[in-house]
Amino acid sequence: MLYLVGLGLADETDITVRGLEIVKKAERVYLEAYTAILLVDKEKLEAFYGRPVIEADREKVESGSDEILADADKVDVAFLVVGDPFGATTHTDLVLRARELGIESKVIPNASIMSGIGCTGLQLYNFGQTVSMVFFTENWKPSSYYDRVKENVQLGLHTLVLLDIKVKEPSLENMARGRLVYEPPRFMTVAQCASQMLETEEERQEGVWGPDSLAVGAARVGAADQKLVAGTLKELAEVEMGRPLHSLVLIGKRAHDLEKDYIREFAVDQATFDASWQKGGYGTM
Amino acid sequence: MLYLVGLGLADETDITVRGLEIVKKAERVYLEAYTAILLVDKEKLEAFYGRPVIEADREKVESGSDEILADADKVDVAFLVVGDPFGATTHTDLVLRARELGIESKVIPNASIMSGIGCTGLQLYNFGQTVSMVFFTENWKPSSYYDRVKENVQLGLHTLVLLDIKVKEPSLENMARGRLVYEPPRFMTVAQCASQMLETEEERQEGVWGPDSLAVGAARVGAADQKLVAGTLKELAEVEMGRPLHSLVLIGKRAHDLEKDYIREFAVDQATFDASWQKGGYGTM
Repeated sequence: MLYLVGLGLADETDITVRGLEIVKKAERVYLEAYTAILLVDKEKLEAFYGRPVIEADREKVESGSDEILADADKVDVAFLVVGDPFGATTHTDLVLRARELGIESKVIPNASIMSGIGCTGLQLYNFGQTVSMVFFTENWKPSSYYDRVKENVQLGLHTLVLLDIKVKEPSLENMARGRLVYEPPRFMTVAQCASQMLETEEERQEGVWGPDSLAVGAARVGAADQKLVAGTLKELAEVEMGRPLHSLVLIGKRAHDLEKDYIREFAVDQATFDASWQKGGYGTM
Repeated sequence: MLYLVGLGLADETDITVRGLEIVKKAERVYLEAYTAILLVDKEKLEAFYGRPVIEADREKVESGSDEILADADKVDVAFLVVGDPFGATTHTDLVLRARELGIESKVIPNASIMSGIGCTGLQLYNFGQTVSMVFFTENWKPSSYYDRVKENVQLGLHTLVLLDIKVKEPSLENMARGRLVYEPPRFMTVAQCASQMLETEEERQEGVWGPDSLAVGAARVGAADQKLVAGTLKELAEVEMGRPLHSLVLIGKRAHDLEKDYIREFAVDQATFDASWQKGGYGTM
C-alpha cells in the first residue's frame, strides 16, 4: 500500500495520530522536500518518528517514482507531504502511476495552506481561484497570474497567492561549466510578493489593484510564531515577517464587516487600514 | 488560553499529535456539534482522550459563549471543531469574543473539507468560490447559490457544494405546541443535492448546468470507506453513497486531462463520462 501522509503546516507534532501510526509501521518513509517545507529539519522528524526518512527531491518523485513505489504492492510505503497530499501541490501523478502498477493508495489528509489561510479570519467561502507567484528575474516577469486575479477581483472575491520556493535548484552558472551545484534555498517573502504585484500592475495598467489595495500577509501559518499583517500593498512591500513560509491574500470587495473586525487587529496601521477600506469600497459589493 | 482544535474529517485518530496533547491537558473540553460531525460518537472521543467532552450546540456557542470562555484567561479551554476551526464554518466570532474579554486564543489547524476535497483529484487551484446547499422544502427553495455557481461556471472553475446538515433542530410543529422537541438528525446526500440542482436549473433556466453536466460526489472524505463517484448530475441524482457526510463538486470546463484521468476511475459509467466530457467541452477553456 502507498500511503500519502499529510504533515500539516508547522512542525513534527502536526502529523495526525493516524498518520503517525502509519509512518511508524511503514517499510520505507519518503519526505517530499521540494514544494514546501516544515519549520523543522529532517533529523527532528526522524527522532520523532523513530525512523529514518528518505528525502525525495523533484527528480526522484517525477522521474524516479518507481523507486518509491518498489514493492508497494507487498509492503507499506509512506510518502510524506508537507500540508495536505492533495492540497497546494497535488500528487495525483504518483497515485496514477501506482494505479498503473496495480498498487493501492490511501491518503491521510491534513491541514493545507489552502484552508489554513482561514486563520486570517477571511472566510474561505469568499475566496476565488488560488494563484502562484514565482520569483521575477531581470528578464522573466510572468504576469499570467494577473488575469486570474482579475477574475477574482471583478467578482469581489479574495485571492490566495502562494509564494515561490526554490529548494535544491541546480545553479545555471555551474551547469554551464558542467558541474552540478545547487543554489542555496530561497523562499519568497510577503514583501517581495507585494512589490512584484505592484510591478505587474505598473506594466499591465488595468487597475486590478494598486498601492492602496488591501491585503493580508501570513507567515508560518499554524506555528507558535504565526504572524499576520494586514495593510495596503504599499505597506506590505516594506513589511518584515521573519522566517518562511509566507503567503499573501489580496482582499476582495465582497468582504464582510466580521472579516474586517477580525483582520484590522493585525493592521500595520489601523488608521490607514480603515481609510483604505472605506476609500476602496470594501464591504460594498 | 482558548485553543480551537481542528479534529480533521473522519475519526478520533485524525486529531494532530499537538492537538491531542492540548486536549489531554485542558481544564475543559467542548465539542462543536452542530455544523459537522465526525464518523464516531462522543463516547469514542472521550475514551480516546481519556477526558469528558462537553457537547456545544449552536445555542451554547452563539449565545452562551461566556460559559465556554469562563476563566479562560487563567486556565486552558479546548474547543474542538470537526475539520478545521476556520474552515467551512469559521469560529471567528468566538475568537473575537475572547479578544474582547482579554483572552488569548490559538488555533490548531487540521484537514478541512475545503482542502480535503482535493482527494477527488480535482486541483484546488481550479476551484472558484464555495457554496452551500440547504434542504429544500415545499415552499422554500432558495436559489441564491445559483448565481455564485454561475460566476464559477462562466470562468470554467470547479465549485465545491457543501451539503446541509440538521442536528438538534427544534421541531417547529412541537414548538407551536409549546414543547421543545428536537427533530432527528438529517444529512443531505449527493443524490439530493444533484436533484435539487436540477430543480433550480429548471426554475432559473439560465443554462448554468443541466442533466449532462459532470460532477463528483464525495462521501466520508478521509475515512477508510471514503467513496468518490463521478458522473452526470442526472446519474448522481440516483446514486447511493452511504452514510454521511457527503459533498459534491460541479466540474468546471477549465479542467485538465490529468484531472480527467484521475476522476474517470470513479465514473458511474465510463462511456457516459467520456461522452459527456467531450460533448460538454470540458478541458477546452
